[in-house]
Amino acid sequence: MVNILTGDRPTGCLHLGHYVGSLQTRITLQKEIKLSNKEYKYVGPLQNRLETQINNKEYKCYILLADTQGLTDNFANLHIIKNNIIEILKDYIAVGIDPETWCIFAQSKIHELFELTIYLMNLATFNNLSRIPTLKVEIQQKGFDNSIPMGFLNYPISQAADILLFHANLVPAGEDQSCLIEFANELAQKYNNLYCKNFQRFEKIKMILSNTPKLIGIDGKLKASKTLNNAILLSDCAKTVQKKVQMMYTDPNHILISDPGQVEGNVVFSYLDAFYKDKEHLDSLKEHYKKGGLGDSEVKKLLQNTLNNFLDPIREKRSNLHNDDLMQILENGTKNAKKIAEQNIANIRKDLMLNYL
Amino acid sequence: MVNILTGDRPTGCLHLGHYVGSLQTRITLQKEIKLSNKEYKYVGPLQNRLETQINNKEYKCYILLADTQGLTDNFANLHIIKNNIIEILKDYIAVGIDPETWCIFAQSKIHELFELTIYLMNLATFNNLSRIPTLKVEIQQKGFDNSIPMGFLNYPISQAADILLFHANLVPAGEDQSCLIEFANELAQKYNNLYCKNFQRFEKIKMILSNTPKLIGIDGKLKASKTLNNAILLSDCAKTVQKKVQMMYTDPNHILISDPGQVEGNVVFSYLDAFYKDKEHLDSLKEHYKKGGLGDSEVKKLLQNTLNNFLDPIREKRSNLHNDDLMQILENGTKNAKKIAEQNIANIRKDLMLNYL
Repeated sequence: MVNILTGDRPTGCLHLGHYVGSLQTRITLQKEIKLSNKEYKYVGPLQNRLETQINNKEYKCYILLADTQGLTDNFANLHIIKNNIIEILKDYIAVGIDPETWCIFAQSKIHELFELTIYLMNLATFNNLSRIPTLKVEIQQKGFDNSIPMGFLNYPISQAADILLFHANLVPAGEDQSCLIEFANELAQKYNNLYCKNFQRFEKIKMILSNTPKLIGIDGKLKASKTLNNAILLSDCAKTVQKKVQMMYTDPNHILISDPGQVEGNVVFSYLDAFYKDKEHLDSLKEHYKKGGLGDSEVKKLLQNTLNNFLDPIREKRSNLHNDDLMQILENGTKNAKKIAEQNIANIRKDLMLNYL
Repeated sequence: MVNILTGDRPTGCLHLGHYVGSLQTRITLQKEIKLSNKEYKYVGPLQNRLETQINNKEYKCYILLADTQGLTDNFANLHIIKNNIIEILKDYIAVGIDPETWCIFAQSKIHELFELTIYLMNLATFNNLSRIPTLKVEIQQKGFDNSIPMGFLNYPISQAADILLFHANLVPAGEDQSCLIEFANELAQKYNNLYCKNFQRFEKIKMILSNTPKLIGIDGKLKASKTLNNAILLSDCAKTVQKKVQMMYTDPNHILISDPGQVEGNVVFSYLDAFYKDKEHLDSLKEHYKKGGLGDSEVKKLLQNTLNNFLDPIREKRSNLHNDDLMQILENGTKNAKKIAEQNIANIRKDLMLNYL
């Protein structure tokens, strides 16, 4: 059984960085699962189907809307989480994520996750957590230091609970998540050693790394991010995309069109790398730009068209979505996830000798 | 509405220290509630009755078996928790705790407690926790330092969740718990400030301090404790009590009967203070002992008789208890507690804007 789990914190609309970093991988996975699915078996009413048979392998695919985790640094701004649940659902469906393949569910509604988190908290020390590189960086970035809220400090354990409760053994995620997956594997190992005789409750978690590098921000900053307001949202209209591309950081020394320009660190070319399909043409444009004679406005125009062509069908699909239908998708997914969670927590309670009453 | 909540970690049988420190208070409370209950109203089938009307005040009384909390430092010794659930239930009923007055429930079965704990974790920082004196002492005693398991570090938040989920405003507890109650009040205040406009979700928690000082161990160590094996258990047989009293630390300089003896720090007199009813006679014995001429064996004999007279009816009641009935009491209490928990978490989810789906 292959269980794939991934997710997003509903703290903002998704942007092109999310598309390149994770949504694309999900859509590729979904296509592979569907295409190679020669002996497809119908296993229940469509809405409730979680399982797909591929080459005698059973796949379960989960996407978790991590609202509880989102609260760990938005506990004073509840409306952020509340408002973005629906926006992210729109983004998912608009880019083509198929709720028949993916079980999309809300983290806070799976109460078994709270329970497993609390149990796993006994298996990690404060020191274990404070050595996780990604957490370290985030604590610094947020200026938390010792005033770090316990919820935020604890999010790697809560994330491990998300993965382990659903016995996910395949997690599509970015490079910065690898230390968190390693930590989840350590917790799983400790659990197995302490509570399982002659069997393993949890198997090893493997990552699927996105093969595209992180998309940089339009300001040339390392990472495109909603918080830094340097990202192009999947929900941005054509005019906004035009404006944002217009503002993009290029090569500050490329003043006259005839000047030779730099392609490395040039945001416009990074985005073309990610979204422009004709790689040969792109290579010739890069050569031209480097030599001199190709103006920023011309490559920006090309990028504007490329991005808007890419986003147009997403926008169209988005505009036809109804909130009620989206919430129904989330409700169905959450119901399905809940069933699995209930089965799995029962085993965990047994392992912990808490299966009395 | 007065909600009283107290509890025990099922990590060992209860002993005379528990009796003096907390069980006695519960029985007194129970008597007061029953005695002053002149306009008693029958409000449902006995088994499901949680509420008693006293002087137009409604009381709900909860005793929580803190198995989840017990796991925080017994996560590698699960059988300790498993075995002691039933032992503690026996102790409760044998000393006269009335399951009609008290709703006795298992912490791990009230899943809403896990959820509230996670939400409250956003409202306290690592620094807030590490400044709690009682936690500090325990971390030192257990030699945890920075290798403190997250679950143990977090127990004051989990304890606050226990109190707040049941809107307990009266908590009978020992002096060492006062800093934990203060911490719970701080969390409640933060919650009210952040999430409640024009109302207070949680009111102030008040403590009922036991008016008897802590019972020292039979070895003269500060605190009687099962772990230190220096306590007389409520379930000890008459012979064990005789032996334990025989071993009691008295005055090492009181060698001959004729020698003057010290009463302060003398364990035998501490226990007589707590359990011997005839205070006038006890005072004269103390004078005699101080002057010299009263042997240890004579006061020990008196204490043996006193304790065994006190424990005899408890033993008799204990021997007539059946495990099935006890588990039924726990199951009924847990069901009742669950109903309240479900109602109260619904309001909390609303406060946190998590009441979608």
